[in-house]
Amino acid sequence: MIRRSEVIAARERAAAMVRKAGVFITDAEKAKIEVVDFGYGDLSRFGMSLLTLVSTDRIGVKLLTLFPRQTEPEHWHPPLGADPGKEETVRVVWGTIFFYVEGPDTVKEGFVPKGKESVYTLRHELKLGPGDMLYFPPGKKHWFQAGPDGGIMYSFSSVARDVLDSFTDPDIVRVTKIVED
Amino acid sequence: MIRRSEVIAARERAAAMVRKAGVFITDAEKAKIEVVDFGYGDLSRFGMSLLTLVSTDRIGVKLLTLFPRQTEPEHWHPPLGADPGKEETVRVVWGTIFFYVEGPDTVKEGFVPKGKESVYTLRHELKLGPGDMLYFPPGKKHWFQAGPDGGIMYSFSSVARDVLDSFTDPDIVRVTKIVED
Repeated sequence: MIRRSEVIAARERAAAMVRKAGVFITDAEKAKIEVVDFGYGDLSRFGMSLLTLVSTDRIGVKLLTLFPRQTEPEHWHPPLGADPGKEETVRVVWGTIFFYVEGPDTVKEGFVPKGKESVYTLRHELKLGPGDMLYFPPGKKHWFQAGPDGGIMYSFSSVARDVLDSFTDPDIVRVTKIVED
Repeated sequence: MIRRSEVIAARERAAAMVRKAGVFITDAEKAKIEVVDFGYGDLSRFGMSLLTLVSTDRIGVKLLTLFPRQTEPEHWHPPLGADPGKEETVRVVWGTIFFYVEGPDTVKEGFVPKGKESVYTLRHELKLGPGDMLYFPPGKKHWFQAGPDGGIMYSFSSVARDVLDSFTDPDIVRVTKIVED
């Protein structure tokens, strides 16, 4: 749960980062940036700012902005009916984003959020900078975290149904609750 | 048919435009830019420079660069088997691109290529600048042309099979032939 003023401030900050990185977004798009807290209510540690550019029943395109050291919790995209689940290719456009995937523990420049060790099971660190891409087949678990300056990336995917995403941490609430202040 | 030296020059020019527009591409990506002449052999009038960022059996993401006044001929994306055809959303990131779609003739700032009137049947002009997007359902005919400074856009689509694209002009050759010089 976060306050309305936090949402507005996060949106401003994300839009400023995006524009400084040279990615053009309109003012109407800025107003549509979704501030996600994953139910933790602590944007300084967890969450992201999300601008959906395309959402059809076949494809999804999003621009994700992470503040410095902000973490998106471990998750995967489950199947639904005939859909094997969302496949996703990310492409970093600015900053640094560490991805954590299956493989030997190589956590080095990023970190597992304190007190959350049991719900961040993947410890193989990949460091992505501008122009770097990663492909996640449907169902493939992953989590990610921005470097010291934050990070911005595109997510190109098959049909996106965010509310269906599965998270390792049972405490997560995917739909951000906003309280007026 | 175009010469190798033309391909190299067009690739350099497109990459410079892309980078000047603030879109980060790697040198490896620059080297992969596909220069398309549609068989006309005249890049000053027809063609585009195409960088495929993502191509899976579910989605396609491309970055298209058009030189000033360069035209992509009228075409559509036909069905194939169970696939109803490619759906496509374009998003302009820099410059101006005129799109021509079904509707009343409003050609004003762009132009129908001289001597090609019969194979450019769509005359409803839409002017797109940075942040503007257009969605084309499968099978929907369209053509486009850059404004006086050229234009850059993303194409976000379902699976892309360019060689299957259908063109109104029967003279078009989708796979560019390059002669060594």
